[in-house]
Amino acid sequence: MKGIEVLPVEGIPEVRTGDDLAEILLDRAGSALRSGDVLVVTHKVVSKAEGRLVDLRAVEPSPLAKGFAAEHGKDPRQVEVVLRESRRIVRMDRGIIISETRHGFVCANAGVDASNVPGGHTVCLLPLEPDTSAAELRDALAARIGVEVAVIISDSFGRAWRQGITNVAIGVAGMMPLTDYRGERDPHGYPLEASVLAVADELAAASELVMGKTDSVPAALIKNYPYRRGPGSGRDLIMEPGRDLFR
Amino acid sequence: MKGIEVLPVEGIPEVRTGDDLAEILLDRAGSALRSGDVLVVTHKVVSKAEGRLVDLRAVEPSPLAKGFAAEHGKDPRQVEVVLRESRRIVRMDRGIIISETRHGFVCANAGVDASNVPGGHTVCLLPLEPDTSAAELRDALAARIGVEVAVIISDSFGRAWRQGITNVAIGVAGMMPLTDYRGERDPHGYPLEASVLAVADELAAASELVMGKTDSVPAALIKNYPYRRGPGSGRDLIMEPGRDLFR
Repeated sequence: MKGIEVLPVEGIPEVRTGDDLAEILLDRAGSALRSGDVLVVTHKVVSKAEGRLVDLRAVEPSPLAKGFAAEHGKDPRQVEVVLRESRRIVRMDRGIIISETRHGFVCANAGVDASNVPGGHTVCLLPLEPDTSAAELRDALAARIGVEVAVIISDSFGRAWRQGITNVAIGVAGMMPLTDYRGERDPHGYPLEASVLAVADELAAASELVMGKTDSVPAALIKNYPYRRGPGSGRDLIMEPGRDLFR
Repeated sequence: MKGIEVLPVEGIPEVRTGDDLAEILLDRAGSALRSGDVLVVTHKVVSKAEGRLVDLRAVEPSPLAKGFAAEHGKDPRQVEVVLRESRRIVRMDRGIIISETRHGFVCANAGVDASNVPGGHTVCLLPLEPDTSAAELRDALAARIGVEVAVIISDSFGRAWRQGITNVAIGVAGMMPLTDYRGERDPHGYPLEASVLAVADELAAASELVMGKTDSVPAALIKNYPYRRGPGSGRDLIMEPGRDLFR
């Protein structure tokens, strides 16, 4: 009975703009990293290292942001940042903004988040190109210690119809995020239906189980998962607009 | 660096109506089971043991089922079963039926599935009461080998806006499926937002990584996950209608 292991990467210090995230992760997890592992990193530390932070004191809110914030007791400057990070508003109701980010992800507040950010007037954005962030991390680990791993950048998203948030993959490097069983047959010879599995989201979800929410553990290592190598992207996990029944 | 382990429960034979599922699982995983483990079981074997199977030859399709099936090349009897298992249709478009089951889950085809079922003219329904199924399994394991575990009954659901399906929890026993961090503060003293984590769904997702889709591995054991004990329910994971922006 050989299973997978999900290990927390502990002891990561507060990450600052310009920090070498690969070096920080290697310092804490380098001795445990092996080729074939999956490294899941929460976007928050990636965004911080990349300087994807906005000082709210420099943000001038629009009338829409001011109105929505006043109605729902929000900071109008933070609402403004959410609107700027959105390319389409899916729902804007009851104090909640569900929008499509410039990457195409549909999530609350366009991924803009004020928790786990120092300062009190700073919010954190999603990485500009999470796939690129993942690829750079993967390449740096290969170059520095010669391991070939898959890298997933994660965020926690809410879901339609279900309570609670779960970790999902927003950036991917070195693996295919979907496993397609279509065309295969079950043990009874029946063709498998509805059988494209979002394994990168499941890996991200598994990693959250060792992370906790206070971001003191912003990364996890998954061992023995036989992922399919290839040029996968976090965008593979976005439903094509033409097939999306919930635009 | 102590993490969690996700172990497949292998060698489970084809489950038939009336089978003692606890005994079957004990036979394959009993020696590995310890108090504090989480046992995740796919609903398919639970439904089979409980006889939640429908012989399509005995189903008389309604005009609605006939029309939708004819338009989209489906079996009208299977569409009829989907409609009967639904209490509300959320979307019925492009050959896809997204509906709310009698339990309150929103998913494709009301959880009705023809794969991994022997016979060729039989479909499998969701368990009548997945929480009860989970509790019975949990109680049987406690009674027979004295272990106290959490049990999750899982199914694979699609998601709005995202490609691919992931495993989620539809029945829960012995644990709280949501972990609520609201009121806690991050290391910077900022109150955590949007911080109710659907950990039972994340455990279900993690278990899928060792299961595969052909159902030869219909259960997994998760070790070292410090779940919160309590009277949790799969229904805790359903968004309350009054808060649901995507009804």
